[in-house]
Amino acid sequence: MIKGKLKRDIHFIIELDKMKSILRQTSLIDGSRKENDAEHSWHISVMAMILHEYSNLPIDLCKVIKMLLVHDLVEIYAGDTFCYDKEGNASKEARELEAADKLFIMLDENKGKELRNLWEEFEEGKSNEAIFAAAMDRMQPIFSNYYNNGGTWKKHNIKKEDVYKRMAPIKEASDELWEFVTNMVEDVVDKGYISG
Amino acid sequence: MIKGKLKRDIHFIIELDKMKSILRQTSLIDGSRKENDAEHSWHISVMAMILHEYSNLPIDLCKVIKMLLVHDLVEIYAGDTFCYDKEGNASKEARELEAADKLFIMLDENKGKELRNLWEEFEEGKSNEAIFAAAMDRMQPIFSNYYNNGGTWKKHNIKKEDVYKRMAPIKEASDELWEFVTNMVEDVVDKGYISG
Repeated sequence: MIKGKLKRDIHFIIELDKMKSILRQTSLIDGSRKENDAEHSWHISVMAMILHEYSNLPIDLCKVIKMLLVHDLVEIYAGDTFCYDKEGNASKEARELEAADKLFIMLDENKGKELRNLWEEFEEGKSNEAIFAAAMDRMQPIFSNYYNNGGTWKKHNIKKEDVYKRMAPIKEASDELWEFVTNMVEDVVDKGYISG
Repeated sequence: MIKGKLKRDIHFIIELDKMKSILRQTSLIDGSRKENDAEHSWHISVMAMILHEYSNLPIDLCKVIKMLLVHDLVEIYAGDTFCYDKEGNASKEARELEAADKLFIMLDENKGKELRNLWEEFEEGKSNEAIFAAAMDRMQPIFSNYYNNGGTWKKHNIKKEDVYKRMAPIKEASDELWEFVTNMVEDVVDKGYISG
């Protein structure tokens, strides 16, 4: 007999397919189209596998990966909020909390709690794993913008100080990654794609 | 100073973006377009997080997830091979081996070896983790085909026996998941979307 719990799990997994249709602001590196949440989550999870050795702090890589895989799930209902959109970000927390209530209740209590805890820890941004996960989340759009002539930075006329503010978790997470990305950003400033 | 190793890591990460443009045969569950390798890899990694409790065999979940995140990377150069395409599958191994040589050498020896080992273990399909990972890889297209009126099964006139052959790792991985997916497949047979 198929148990009710498994049915709920499968229903949840099918609902996750919607992540493939939640578009982000950033484009693929080849500029062909906007990236979606599922692709983004995959990319930064593999990034964590490749880059974890540069972490300043001791981290549980497995937890970082799990966190990255589920960190954007609430966007299935709350949508993607552009990180430099002040108005959107004012309502982000309330929208995402409502989405989390709707989403994680689809699973049984233990499993729903496990996923919700990972998401909450990421949002809180305090644990070593949350800091490293946030660094991956902030680094990936830098590559996209760098290879797309300034990408969303240029399109939305984002200031250098706002880019650095957004990148803060990378500074905390890794000296080497921080040096690398600041070089990329300064290069973009020199090219005039973001205002210094 | 930015080390040469980090430069290679970042170059590899940028190359990975191409996974978002490798299209698979299966569609999104809403039927709107074909799915790509990055999305697929994300979806089955989260599936492993949700479904690992149903494994018949003891598994290291973290290893399963890492395996699933990288199992299709060689397709960046070898392309996606439709699982029921006999001709394509005859040349698949050679094409993918060549792709692996080209891809993993981008990283330093240790890191390249770690990723290559995960891919080889998945392809070999013998360890408990490889069996469970393969089960996730086989399950996800079943959902797509089920919700798309038979999807690739109907489109390519795939026989029931071939579907069951392809699904074999699910049987080995989990009694409960096997019961669930065989019910789905039989339902599709009853509807006439695949020939019995």
